[in-house]
Amino acid sequence: DFEHGFADVQPAFGVSEDEMQRLLRGGIIRFSSFIDEILDEGRLIVQQVREPDSTPLFSAILHGPPGSGKTALAAKIALDSEYPLIKLCSPDNMIGFNESMKIEHMRRIFDDAYKSPMSVVLIDNIERIIEWVPIGPRFSNAVLQAMMVLLKKDPPKDRRLLVLATTGERSVLQQLDLFTSFDSDIAVPNVKGYDELKLIVDESGVFRDSTRAIDELRSHTRSESVGVGIKKILMGIETAKQDPDRESRFGMVISRAVAQMGFS
Amino acid sequence: DFEHGFADVQPAFGVSEDEMQRLLRGGIIRFSSFIDEILDEGRLIVQQVREPDSTPLFSAILHGPPGSGKTALAAKIALDSEYPLIKLCSPDNMIGFNESMKIEHMRRIFDDAYKSPMSVVLIDNIERIIEWVPIGPRFSNAVLQAMMVLLKKDPPKDRRLLVLATTGERSVLQQLDLFTSFDSDIAVPNVKGYDELKLIVDESGVFRDSTRAIDELRSHTRSESVGVGIKKILMGIETAKQDPDRESRFGMVISRAVAQMGFS
Amino acid sequence: DFEHGFADVQPAFGVSEDEMQRLLRGGIIRFSSFIDEILDEGRLIVQQVREPDSTPLFSAILHGPPGSGKTALAAKIALDSEYPLIKLCSPDNMIGFNESMKIEHMRRIFDDAYKSPMSVVLIDNIERIIEWVPIGPRFSNAVLQAMMVLLKKDPPKDRRLLVLATTGERSVLQQLDLFTSFDSDIAVPNVKGYDELKLIVDESGVFRDSTRAIDELRSHTRSESVGVGIKKILMGIETAKQDPDRESRFGMVISRAVAQMGFS
Amino acid sequence: DFEHGFADVQPAFGVSEDEMQRLLRGGIIRFSSFIDEILDEGRLIVQQVREPDSTPLFSAILHGPPGSGKTALAAKIALDSEYPLIKLCSPDNMIGFNESMKIEHMRRIFDDAYKSPMSVVLIDNIERIIEWVPIGPRFSNAVLQAMMVLLKKDPPKDRRLLVLATTGERSVLQQLDLFTSFDSDIAVPNVKGYDELKLIVDESGVFRDSTRAIDELRSHTRSESVGVGIKKILMGIETAKQDPDRESRFGMVISRAVAQMGFS
Amino acid sequence: DFEHGFADVQPAFGVSEDEMQRLLRGGIIRFSSFIDEILDEGRLIVQQVREPDSTPLFSAILHGPPGSGKTALAAKIALDSEYPLIKLCSPDNMIGFNESMKIEHMRRIFDDAYKSPMSVVLIDNIERIIEWVPIGPRFSNAVLQAMMVLLKKDPPKDRRLLVLATTGERSVLQQLDLFTSFDSDIAVPNVKGYDELKLIVDESGVFRDSTRAIDELRSHTRSESVGVGIKKILMGIETAKQDPDRESRFGMVISRAVAQMGFS
Amino acid sequence: DFEHGFADVQPAFGVSEDEMQRLLRGGIIRFSSFIDEILDEGRLIVQQVREPDSTPLFSAILHGPPGSGKTALAAKIALDSEYPLIKLCSPDNMIGFNESMKIEHMRRIFDDAYKSPMSVVLIDNIERIIEWVPIGPRFSNAVLQAMMVLLKKDPPKDRRLLVLATTGERSVLQQLDLFTSFDSDIAVPNVKGYDELKLIVDESGVFRDSTRAIDELRSHTRSESVGVGIKKILMGIETAKQDPDRESRFGMVISRAVAQMGFS
Ligand SMILES: Nc1ncnc2c1ncn2[C@@H]1O[C@H](COP(=O)(O)OP(=O)(O)OP(=O)(O)O)[C@@H](O)[C@H]1O
Ligand SMILES: Nc1ncnc2c1ncn2[C@@H]1O[C@H](COP(=O)(O)OP(=O)(O)OP(=O)(O)O)[C@@H](O)[C@H]1O
Ligand SMILES: Nc1ncnc2c1ncn2[C@@H]1O[C@H](COP(=O)(O)OP(=O)(O)OP(=O)(O)O)[C@@H](O)[C@H]1O
Ligand SMILES: Nc1ncnc2c1ncn2[C@@H]1O[C@H](COP(=O)(O)OP(=O)(O)OP(=O)(O)O)[C@@H](O)[C@H]1O
Ligand SMILES: Nc1ncnc2c1ncn2[C@@H]1O[C@H](COP(=O)(O)OP(=O)(O)OP(=O)(O)O)[C@@H](O)[C@H]1O
Ligand SMILES: Nc1ncnc2c1ncn2[C@@H]1O[C@H](COP(=O)(O)OP(=O)(O)OP(=O)(O)O)[C@@H](O)[C@H]1O
Ligand SMILES: [Mg+2]
Ligand SMILES: [Mg+2]
Ligand SMILES: [Mg+2]
Ligand SMILES: [Mg+2]
Ligand SMILES: [Mg+2]
Ligand SMILES: [Mg+2]
Repeated sequence: DFEHGFADVQPAFGVSEDEMQRLLRGGIIRFSSFIDEILDEGRLIVQQVREPDSTPLFSAILHGPPGSGKTALAAKIALDSEYPLIKLCSPDNMIGFNESMKIEHMRRIFDDAYKSPMSVVLIDNIERIIEWVPIGPRFSNAVLQAMMVLLKKDPPKDRRLLVLATTGERSVLQQLDLFTSFDSDIAVPNVKGYDELKLIVDESGVFRDSTRAIDELRSHTRSESVGVGIKKILMGIETAKQDPDRESRFGMVISRAVAQMGFS
Repeated sequence: DFEHGFADVQPAFGVSEDEMQRLLRGGIIRFSSFIDEILDEGRLIVQQVREPDSTPLFSAILHGPPGSGKTALAAKIALDSEYPLIKLCSPDNMIGFNESMKIEHMRRIFDDAYKSPMSVVLIDNIERIIEWVPIGPRFSNAVLQAMMVLLKKDPPKDRRLLVLATTGERSVLQQLDLFTSFDSDIAVPNVKGYDELKLIVDESGVFRDSTRAIDELRSHTRSESVGVGIKKILMGIETAKQDPDRESRFGMVISRAVAQMGFS
Repeated sequence: DFEHGFADVQPAFGVSEDEMQRLLRGGIIRFSSFIDEILDEGRLIVQQVREPDSTPLFSAILHGPPGSGKTALAAKIALDSEYPLIKLCSPDNMIGFNESMKIEHMRRIFDDAYKSPMSVVLIDNIERIIEWVPIGPRFSNAVLQAMMVLLKKDPPKDRRLLVLATTGERSVLQQLDLFTSFDSDIAVPNVKGYDELKLIVDESGVFRDSTRAIDELRSHTRSESVGVGIKKILMGIETAKQDPDRESRFGMVISRAVAQMGFS
Repeated sequence: DFEHGFADVQPAFGVSEDEMQRLLRGGIIRFSSFIDEILDEGRLIVQQVREPDSTPLFSAILHGPPGSGKTALAAKIALDSEYPLIKLCSPDNMIGFNESMKIEHMRRIFDDAYKSPMSVVLIDNIERIIEWVPIGPRFSNAVLQAMMVLLKKDPPKDRRLLVLATTGERSVLQQLDLFTSFDSDIAVPNVKGYDELKLIVDESGVFRDSTRAIDELRSHTRSESVGVGIKKILMGIETAKQDPDRESRFGMVISRAVAQMGFS
Repeated sequence: DFEHGFADVQPAFGVSEDEMQRLLRGGIIRFSSFIDEILDEGRLIVQQVREPDSTPLFSAILHGPPGSGKTALAAKIALDSEYPLIKLCSPDNMIGFNESMKIEHMRRIFDDAYKSPMSVVLIDNIERIIEWVPIGPRFSNAVLQAMMVLLKKDPPKDRRLLVLATTGERSVLQQLDLFTSFDSDIAVPNVKGYDELKLIVDESGVFRDSTRAIDELRSHTRSESVGVGIKKILMGIETAKQDPDRESRFGMVISRAVAQMGFS
Repeated sequence: DFEHGFADVQPAFGVSEDEMQRLLRGGIIRFSSFIDEILDEGRLIVQQVREPDSTPLFSAILHGPPGSGKTALAAKIALDSEYPLIKLCSPDNMIGFNESMKIEHMRRIFDDAYKSPMSVVLIDNIERIIEWVPIGPRFSNAVLQAMMVLLKKDPPKDRRLLVLATTGERSVLQQLDLFTSFDSDIAVPNVKGYDELKLIVDESGVFRDSTRAIDELRSHTRSESVGVGIKKILMGIETAKQDPDRESRFGMVISRAVAQMGFS
């Protein structure tokens, strides 16, 4: 019924590991050394929060271009932490919530996290949670303020909390004074060069002649850099699969994505 | 009674194939090769979503000038998909809805779609759904945000969803960061030249001397391009029918539409 | 009682021919060939909508300076159509309505119209219905959006609808993207020259020496054009009637109206 | 109790002649020929509305600097009209009303007026009723729009209505498109020269040597024009009465008012 | 409980002389002839309102820099008036009130005042009552408008009312058109020179060597003028009392206040 | 349940000394003479309010860069006061409160404080309580206004109150006219030079070779000043502890903080 949204507010307890696994459906392809560095940094943070005489609260934000893999990497770090509790705070679960329902939803996620001796809260896509839109600009200040306070509020005695967040709008978060609320920030890069792209393409096992696929792309873009998120590339491989000439379709689809990135 | 609008929110289940047929009342006249290309592209997308091991969610937006046939083409692609369920999300069904009623209505359409193993959701006239107006500018950010999340939220396990949307305001959607929420975009053109127009006029079977009808128009506009949407042209043919001198009335009516396009 | 306004929302069924007659109290004086052309154009539109295999919905907007006779001419076209149902949508009947009451009121007028096989809806003074004010500028976007959708929404099967609207703010409607929602627009002119004015003055039968009345005006304005709406001129004749020297009072009163037009 | 304001909305029937008399407490001093001209113009308007075959609705607005006597003159015209019903619409009776209470209050005043065959509605201090403030600027658009519609809405059959309004903010009303809603406008002047002032001072009978009182003022302002509203001058005479040296106190008090006018 | 604020609205009858006395806790030190002039002017106003055949309503506003003694002087004038009723309208008694609660509170204070044949209403700190803040700028227009109307609305027959108000934001009130709603304005000055300061310091009896205290200050500021409100000076004397070297501490504390004034 | 936030409003009585201790978890390291001066100044204020014949209300605001120790120092002063009651007013306890709940919460804290003969109210992080955000800018004016009034409202007879507040946004508070509502302000500095840093690093007892730790930092920043808050430095020491090479990790982590400060 109509109060569906409101009803959703209530049951927020329990582990959301299943949801985490879905965020990782495309796996983690180690197409660049940066990927390993990000996971290493994640492991160090996980370790520091685990340390009993250290600060009981630590927050990190993963930021980068659209589709660069921010959400998947945050989910990976969270799952690898082996903390007893992982909570997901995602706009997908707050559709149609008003400001106070969103704040209550976030509060509850943190309250649940406080109940476990050690937990991770993954806040995905912050700009969507605060309903940012560049025209205006507009956003929910009430939700933003609640997030700022939750990010700096110590958990209760003997509880330890790691907050991992993702955003595609670093500069917006900086203008909102939200970025400095995080103890640490981690940049997530696009797929940059053709060598990285070749590695991904080969791993997919979709093309007979992956070199030609790459060359097709190069012939479209006439550029030495790729500059597209891993997500778009994996999606482009799917589209290519529908075409009898997979290699040339791959070139076409990815070149459009390259052009669009320049635009956005 | 007064709660009519609210009551409308409730029954949203069921197929809306009838509604689709009405959107296609004027048929699809293949006046240009672009029309075939658009329908081809539609078929490819339909096929990709059908593929079981592909991404379970794909969204495309048809954009173009007013009356260029965006809605009819989207309805055509949807009907030709032969997916078990097609849902229409149109401003016509949300008159007088407030923000939360609109969001709930959209949610329900998507929830219905998720119930079928495979479905199309056609979101018609996005700028009207988000209540865009250039003075201000103003729009419903809550509705926009809900749409952004719905467009990127994966359907449940083993469900596949194709979203087709239409808009006459591409640049507005780009400024709102909504355009990049779509996986693909399809441009729908106006009727451009006199050859295309001749084809349409002939197909109507309304004029004794279709060449004169065209010449009448040319003598008004003194231009080699037409640049008017198919919808206005079909409407103009209807008006011409009322006049004893159909050919010269056609020239007058369409030349006004040409002038108005230059203005808007 | 206080809910008077709300109560008004309810009874909206029935014919409003009486109201139409009141809008025409001053009759239609054929002071210029433009008046005949407007009524001719109206007849053609009326005829097109009557045609069973034509488009079932047609909308036209009458625009022009204040008091130029927009409302009277729209009422005249509507009454002459001899359609079985004529509905009036006027700000006079929505005083103190909030946004949702206004939208509901409009919806009901259209729903009533849909019940007749053929009907006219006359939307009078659009800028007042959407509560336009140039400081801000401000207006009711919700009412505007509902109007936009109602103007383009097809009536149910086998129903035909003609919408006639009036506005004194064409450029505002253009900026609001509302103007292009109409299929056709009709300009209503002021009384322009002294010959037109003479015709009106004579028809009134109020002046002994109508030439002197005109000359009095000319001596005030020292201009060859009049540029005042028919409504102000008819009102000025009434005022002149109170004065022993009707001719010179006429000159004074109308010259003030001329000056004020230059100002607005 | 707290709903005091709301309760006030209810009893709005009956004559408000008493209230009118209070607005005229200071009488009408004929200190300038303009005063007679204003009253003459008022009489003509009153006569025109009385005429059975004339337009059944006429509205006039009295505008001028603060304290120039707008309210008193409007009350005078209304009382002299000898119409069976006079209604007062004043901000004094709407303190703390919200928008819909104000609109309802105004509606009721007009509805009462419509019940009498002939009536005057005096709308005092329009800028205060619409809650105008120059910072922003802000005002109640809903109240403004209701007023615009009420000012142009014909009374029911066989009812005649004269609307007299006052404002100290003519240019604001012009910017709001409210000024042109009136059929006629009447300018109310300040007390301009020392001769006019002398007349007023003499009529008060408060000073032994009224020439000295005037000279005292002149010595302060060193200007040949006065430029102060009659209201401030009558108030200044009251203040002067408290002082043993009435003449010199009069000079001081009025000179301050002169200075303040230059400032506002 | 939570409705505390609301409950406060109710009991507003009765004399608030006690509250008045608290506002005067620091007494009135006659450190300058201006203080006497202000009190004289107050006495004259009190006398004019008392006069039975004079205007039944008079309002005066005391304005000046922060801490200059506006509130104390207004309280002094009110207490010395010996009117049967004195009412205080202060932001202290409206914490957390919304707009309509504030307006109702003010209405009640005036209604109480109207019940006494003669009364003073002291409106303290107007900018705080209307919730003025320079960023935006923002303020409560509803409260402002209610105040404007109350300030000009005549009390009922045979009732006389004196309104005394205070503000630290004269130019804000001028921009809001509120300043001209007062019949008279009274400027309250800072402590200006060292001679005035010496007088205050001596009267306190706190310093052994008041000349040295002054010299200490002069050595800090190196300026011949003081320019600080009496309130800060009395507070500075209190602080100095805590220090073994009262004279030098006085110099330090007051010099900081001097610096801060230059800043604000 | 969902009314959790609202429920929190209720129990606000009792001492919050425990909470105070938590704010001081990192202790107070006397790394600079400024720290002693701040605590001295705090002691003087505490003493002045204790004095029975002094002003019964005194307020001071601690301001400084992020993480400079404002909250800890305010808590230290409050705890050392040995006043019978200490109340904490912190954004942590108002998550999701709307404006009126926040104001009521603050009112209650002050009301509780008024019940004790002598008390401290610590208002932490004012910019967060008023929900300040630089984009817009936006903030809760209602909460701001209530705070302004509470800061200047005298406690009841025989009650004495010290208000200590903290902020990282001094210039914002100045623009909001809130800064001058405080009787005194205390600047809290960053850790400035390497000597101060050395002192802190040594006190931690975490490094074998603290000189090398400092040198590592210097080699990164190539600057003679540090300019980072004590909080970040203590956090950096924790992070360093996780690394086998604590000294070089310390250099890395702190140099990032130094860079970030330059940015913010
Ligand atoms: N090295 C990698 N890093 C991140 N994701 C990877 C990697 N390799 C493969 N993937 C897959 O790529 C996809 C990345 O999508 P993801 O949603 O995480 O991107 P995103 O940056 O969060 O996108 P958005 O900007 O839309 O939020 C996932 O399906 C993930 O499993
Ligand atoms: N090739 C074609 N493409 C699209 N529509 C066509 C074509 N041939 C004929 N039509 C008819 O033209 C009309 C196009 O109108 P449609 O409402 O789809 O345009 P639109 O671009 O959505 O208009 P709007 O900008 O008002 O939303 C339909 O009636 C359709 O049946
Ligand atoms: N040729 C004419 N065209 C229109 N109205 C005419 C004509 N001759 C006489 N009239 C009379 O003139 C008046 C025109 O007023 P009407 O209210 O229609 O003007 P309007 O343009 O709608 O004014 P507004 O700008 O105030 O809405 C009516 O009373 C009508 O009967
Ligand atoms: N010739 C006159 N015209 C108007 N008022 C006069 C005249 N002679 C005396 N008076 C008195 O002067 C006073 C004018 O005050 P009034 O309230 O009418 O002014 P106003 O212009 O409406 O003021 P405001 O700008 O405050 O609304 C009244 O008391 C009235 O009786
Ligand atoms: N001559 C004087 N005038 C006014 N106040 C005096 C004088 N002498 C002593 N005082 C004392 O000085 C204090 C002035 O404070 P008061 O609150 O009246 O100032 P204020 O201008 O209203 O301050 P704020 O700007 O904060 O409203 C009072 O305690 C008052 O008793
Ligand atoms: N000399 C000192 N002054 C202040 N804090 C110190 C000092 N020495 C050690 N500390 C510790 O440093 C930390 C300072 O953090 P605190 O929260 O007080 O900073 P803050 O300026 O309030 O931060 P924020 O800007 O985030 O509000 C506390 O843990 C405190 O115990
Ligand atoms: Mg993501
Ligand atoms: Mg369409
Ligand atoms: Mg009209
Ligand atoms: Mg007046
Ligand atoms: Mg004060
Ligand atoms: Mg702090």
